[in-house]
Amino acid sequence: MAKRITPRSVDYSRWYTDIVRQAELADYAPVRGCMIIRPYGYTLWENIKAGLDRRFKETGHVNAYFPLFIPMSFIQKEAQHVAGFSPELAVVTHGGGKKLEEPLVVRPTSETIIGHAYAQWIRSYRDLPLLINQWCNIVRWEKRTRLFLRTTEFLWQEGHTAHATEEEAVEETLRMLGVYADFAINDAAIPVIQGKKSQREKFAGAVDSYTIEAMMGNGWALQSGTSHFLGQNFAKAFDIKYLDRNNELQHCWTTSWGLSTRMVGGIIMTHGDDQGLILPPVLAPIQAVIVPIWRKEKERTVVLEAAERVRAQLADAGVRVKLDDREEVSPGFKFNDWEMRGVPVRVEIGPRDVAQNAVVLARRDRPGKQGKAFGVPADGVAEVVKALLDEVQAALLQRATEFRGANTHTGIRDYEEFKEVLVEKGGFLRVHWAGSPEDEDRIKEETKATISCYPLDIEEGPGRCFYTGQETDNIAIFSRAY
Amino acid sequence: MAKRITPRSVDYSRWYTDIVRQAELADYAPVRGCMIIRPYGYTLWENIKAGLDRRFKETGHVNAYFPLFIPMSFIQKEAQHVAGFSPELAVVTHGGGKKLEEPLVVRPTSETIIGHAYAQWIRSYRDLPLLINQWCNIVRWEKRTRLFLRTTEFLWQEGHTAHATEEEAVEETLRMLGVYADFAINDAAIPVIQGKKSQREKFAGAVDSYTIEAMMGNGWALQSGTSHFLGQNFAKAFDIKYLDRNNELQHCWTTSWGLSTRMVGGIIMTHGDDQGLILPPVLAPIQAVIVPIWRKEKERTVVLEAAERVRAQLADAGVRVKLDDREEVSPGFKFNDWEMRGVPVRVEIGPRDVAQNAVVLARRDRPGKQGKAFGVPADGVAEVVKALLDEVQAALLQRATEFRGANTHTGIRDYEEFKEVLVEKGGFLRVHWAGSPEDEDRIKEETKATISCYPLDIEEGPGRCFYTGQETDNIAIFSRAY
Repeated sequence: MAKRITPRSVDYSRWYTDIVRQAELADYAPVRGCMIIRPYGYTLWENIKAGLDRRFKETGHVNAYFPLFIPMSFIQKEAQHVAGFSPELAVVTHGGGKKLEEPLVVRPTSETIIGHAYAQWIRSYRDLPLLINQWCNIVRWEKRTRLFLRTTEFLWQEGHTAHATEEEAVEETLRMLGVYADFAINDAAIPVIQGKKSQREKFAGAVDSYTIEAMMGNGWALQSGTSHFLGQNFAKAFDIKYLDRNNELQHCWTTSWGLSTRMVGGIIMTHGDDQGLILPPVLAPIQAVIVPIWRKEKERTVVLEAAERVRAQLADAGVRVKLDDREEVSPGFKFNDWEMRGVPVRVEIGPRDVAQNAVVLARRDRPGKQGKAFGVPADGVAEVVKALLDEVQAALLQRATEFRGANTHTGIRDYEEFKEVLVEKGGFLRVHWAGSPEDEDRIKEETKATISCYPLDIEEGPGRCFYTGQETDNIAIFSRAY
Repeated sequence: MAKRITPRSVDYSRWYTDIVRQAELADYAPVRGCMIIRPYGYTLWENIKAGLDRRFKETGHVNAYFPLFIPMSFIQKEAQHVAGFSPELAVVTHGGGKKLEEPLVVRPTSETIIGHAYAQWIRSYRDLPLLINQWCNIVRWEKRTRLFLRTTEFLWQEGHTAHATEEEAVEETLRMLGVYADFAINDAAIPVIQGKKSQREKFAGAVDSYTIEAMMGNGWALQSGTSHFLGQNFAKAFDIKYLDRNNELQHCWTTSWGLSTRMVGGIIMTHGDDQGLILPPVLAPIQAVIVPIWRKEKERTVVLEAAERVRAQLADAGVRVKLDDREEVSPGFKFNDWEMRGVPVRVEIGPRDVAQNAVVLARRDRPGKQGKAFGVPADGVAEVVKALLDEVQAALLQRATEFRGANTHTGIRDYEEFKEVLVEKGGFLRVHWAGSPEDEDRIKEETKATISCYPLDIEEGPGRCFYTGQETDNIAIFSRAY
């Protein structure tokens, strides 16, 4: 009856898939590479959306919706863009029973069709900046797929902004990177690193791509959100122009930025353990679950009544709470089930607790007795639970930060040591780097490690590149990556 | 400079399109039959979504997400379904540069792929009812399109539920019809009629389709939301079975229900006038706009400061408020502009108002001086505005209800009179009806009128069918329809 999750040490990849499926976050779809996001996973996504959408609106953005279908000719207008996305396109060739004159691409990203619209809407400097975000589905025909991390169809938001000057566009690019980092750290409890992508890894059509990079439980990097400075590349391809204050026509400067359902995978692999999922309270669909415990029938009513009073108290205090009153399974089964689903706090109520007008609290992030508090007075339990949720949230961030620290390796002197550390320890290799894109390719081929990012926040000062031996200020983080 | 809207009496259809485009609700897309929902229109949709989503959750539903792509073979499993949807499909034939083995349909509705999932998820009566909703985009290759009312791609929600008994499924179908009606009446101020669709007009694959029907400003009917009792049609096609309490396998009974961006068109055509849009306060993106008025430069600062104080006061009170401090256009231009965009309440502040510590309030639904209140004290203006918003909301519903009453025609004795009333008066023809589906076809061909619905709430008692002369209890509403 009880579900089994493969331990991380046995097979990290199976551990991940076991959690996604057994916690009912998502399922494989009958269409290759697609997934069904089940209610529990979708509610997590709704909470992610709410946290981001609030931040977007606070920074002056509005939402809109652009078409799913993009004429093939649009994709071809920006040279790097078409080169990058061509291999991944899904193409509609027939509509209403007839062959279409021009095939339509199912959007792999919307710079082109939004660029076309902006060219119609923007007339003068008064129309700028134009700050629009879209929540939608995206299709990229991926060869190897994995639930949430890389699927043919996924959900995301894509921000698209147009500005009068290069400076303003760069500022927006970095502002939204900061918004992503703030969300990841404070809502998802994931201590991301803000950095710049290498030229090899940047978005097809961008001048510069920025990223938030997270370390997963196996030491690999997960690119968790990106913000692109597009220069005038798309403005020139789509004729996005404005009349400046001197009545002269200028091309706009544009940005785009996106964060997707991939974030769900990042949360699983940052916080989860061998018992299953651990969800940060800010995003958890259920923050506290109440498990009533009784043996005899006469205990049942009094325990359930007390449980219901606690449920109402927590709900009134704004805690997302569930009372698990199933009768066909045991309390022990319920404990495992909700642990596997990552609910941050469990409230246990048995006949002795009722007699004392108390409850037992258990926190998901600390196993066994160590994470339990006994005899917590039932009156005012809502305040205690809320404080405990805050504590769990902070503890998850701290643990992930410590884990990242322990698995980040510095002071690597040469390529031999680099390879040794990568194989023996894994994690992030934070190194001085002055190599070329071709050097980067060679390292990727030989070690499978790529440049996760050039971190923005560096303290190292100058040093010698481990690969070329050249003196440089530049720091790169190499790692295996999803 | 000022935009012109075609008067309704000149060309109702142009009036509609003028409003959609000039109020910046939506734009035509560069892809045939698709639209771009602009920020103002999308915010209206966000408010519609919030009102519905809250009601869905209150009635026990959860959200999930199913794939955009559906294998062609799925669509073909339910005979009526494939017959109804085949002519409208968009088909993906190529992915990742290769021809697909089985073409994929871009979802025109999701009964099939969700039915496939439910067959995996449902095992026993304990898994029932399963109550899931999805917010997503939909594609139907429509021949004639019109912004919001009928577009190749549109946004909607689709609820899909599975039940153990026929009775429960019928109850759910009617419950969600009631939820739609409650939303339409109380949030959109549209006095819809709840009814049943004729067999000719029902959903392809349903046993019975129910509808909320609204009367537009030209007397035509708009089907604004539908709720379908699917019987065991999809359960049998997709093998959705459960073990009942006696451990016997049974087919489930299913329902589906949807409401789309079409509702935006319904709001425009229910409330709008020759000045433009009129939005119900509950859904309006901007509920109150503040227009500061000054001539001399020294008046400017004091007026803007007073306007900002009022803005802050309204925002604190939870009113969605905008201060229009543009300098390049006149107050008169702003009045027209916001009237055209349908903002329910305008707050005017000039130097004399500032001197009296007062404001002028103007309500959108009553033109000219009749809709204005002068010398409203600036202190405590938020409460006055909130009460006024409630008043406008109620007045819009009342006006629409009276309009529908005045344009609903009863007591029609024969087909001659029917045709005469339809041509000369239009609107809803509420008649006794005992005709066959073939009679319905004939009337449609000869008059373009269709059965909008068989209303659920009838008081008429028995009477003679205007077409067949037969005695009947059945009432039908005939009308021209979108």
